[in-house]
Amino acid sequence: MQNILSNHEIKLIGFDADDTLWKNEDLFFDAQNKIKNILKQKSNKFDEDLLKTEKLNLDIYGYGIKGFILSLIETSVKTSDATINIKSINQIIKLGKRMLKAPINLIEGVDKILSTLSKKYDLILITKGDLLDQERKIEKSKLEKYFKYKKIVSEKNKQTYQNILDDLMIEPQNFLMVGNSFKSDVFPVLEIGGNGVHIPYKILWEHENIKTSEYSKKYIKLNKISDLTTVIN
Amino acid sequence: MQNILSNHEIKLIGFDADDTLWKNEDLFFDAQNKIKNILKQKSNKFDEDLLKTEKLNLDIYGYGIKGFILSLIETSVKTSDATINIKSINQIIKLGKRMLKAPINLIEGVDKILSTLSKKYDLILITKGDLLDQERKIEKSKLEKYFKYKKIVSEKNKQTYQNILDDLMIEPQNFLMVGNSFKSDVFPVLEIGGNGVHIPYKILWEHENIKTSEYSKKYIKLNKISDLTTVIN
Repeated sequence: MQNILSNHEIKLIGFDADDTLWKNEDLFFDAQNKIKNILKQKSNKFDEDLLKTEKLNLDIYGYGIKGFILSLIETSVKTSDATINIKSINQIIKLGKRMLKAPINLIEGVDKILSTLSKKYDLILITKGDLLDQERKIEKSKLEKYFKYKKIVSEKNKQTYQNILDDLMIEPQNFLMVGNSFKSDVFPVLEIGGNGVHIPYKILWEHENIKTSEYSKKYIKLNKISDLTTVIN
Repeated sequence: MQNILSNHEIKLIGFDADDTLWKNEDLFFDAQNKIKNILKQKSNKFDEDLLKTEKLNLDIYGYGIKGFILSLIETSVKTSDATINIKSINQIIKLGKRMLKAPINLIEGVDKILSTLSKKYDLILITKGDLLDQERKIEKSKLEKYFKYKKIVSEKNKQTYQNILDDLMIEPQNFLMVGNSFKSDVFPVLEIGGNGVHIPYKILWEHENIKTSEYSKKYIKLNKISDLTTVIN
C-alpha cells in the first residue's frame, strides 16, 4: 500500500458512509433493545429470531430502516405467538420514524480527513440502503462538499464497484475504498484488483460478519479514520 | 410539439416507469381492497385515513411499497382503535411481500414503441421509489436494453430533472419526458423549459392528482403509449 501511494497511483478514493463517516449501527442496536423492553423479551432468542428474519427478508426489502422495521414487526408478532399487544406495533412504527429522523453523529476526525484528502484526490461516497434515507443523511452530514461523486446502491458486490469504476473510467488499481465492513467495502474491491482500507466500527451487524484472515496481506486495517493520512497523504 | 419534432430538436426522451411502461397502481389498489376485506372495513373512511397517513409519512418514508405497507399497518391499528387482530398485521406483511415479488405486466405496445424510438433517440428511464424494488422491476421488465441511461430518484421535481439534464449536458428544449403523472412527469419538465407527453393511466394515486388545465397548450396528451409515434418518429 505504501508503494502504491508513493507512486501516486491512487486517483479515486471511495468512502462508505454508515459507521465509516457517521455512527449508524448504534441506532439499530438501541432500537432493538427498546423493542425487547417493550415486548419484555430479555433472552438472546429474540435477537437471533430478528437476525434470521432480517436475513430472509434482505432479498426482498434490501438494506435500510424501513425493511428493519418491517422485520421487527414480523419478528415481534412471531416471537410473541401472536399475543403481542397491538399498541406495541404502534410503538415499533413510532420508533422507526424516530430512527429515520435521527440526527447525524459524525465519527471523530471525519471532517478533517475528508477536507485534507479532497484537496489531492477525487472522493466518491458509496453507500447502500434506502434511497431517500441515505440522501437525507448525506445532506444532514454536511460532508457532501468533499465528494465529487456520490452513489447510493442497493448492494455492494464486485459488479457494483466494477460498474462505478467503468462509468468513471478508473482502473481498479487506481481506486482505494475505505469502509467499516470488510464484506461490503473491502472484499469486493480487492477481488476486482482495487485497494482497500478497513476501519472496523465498534458494532458490526452480524450479517456483515465474514472471516478476513485469508486477505490479511492485501489490505490495510486502521483503528480510526484519522489514521488514514499515515497510509495516504 | 410537431414543430420541435420536425426540426429534430429532441435529443433525449425520458420515460417514467410505473404506470407508464408497466402496470403498478393496480397492485396498490388491490392490496388496499384486500386489507379492507380482512379488516371488514367497507367505508371510504379507511381509504381517506390511509391517504392521509401516506401523505403525512411521505417526507419520511418516500415512495414505494415498504412505506405503503408501514402506512397501511399504522392506519389499520389507528382505524380499528387498536382492536385489530394481531394476525391481520401478519397478513399485511405477507401482502407487502407479495407486492414486492409481483410479476411485471407491461402496458400494451411498450416494447414496440421503445424498440422503434431507441433506434433514433437516446432514451432515459426516470423512476422514483424504493431503490431495490425499482431495480428489480427494471430487470424483470426486460426493457433495460432500450435505455442508454436509467435514474432511480427519491422525488421528481424541477431540480431532479435539471440535475439529470446537466449531468448529460442536454438542454431542456432538447428533452422530451413521457409519463402518466402530470405532477411528476410533465409539470416539472415544462417548468424548466422541456417538453412533455402525458399518457394517463386508468388509476391515478390521489397524491399525484393536480389540475392540468392551465398548462393545456404546452404539452401533448395521448391515450396510449403506442400513439407516441404520431408525435415523434
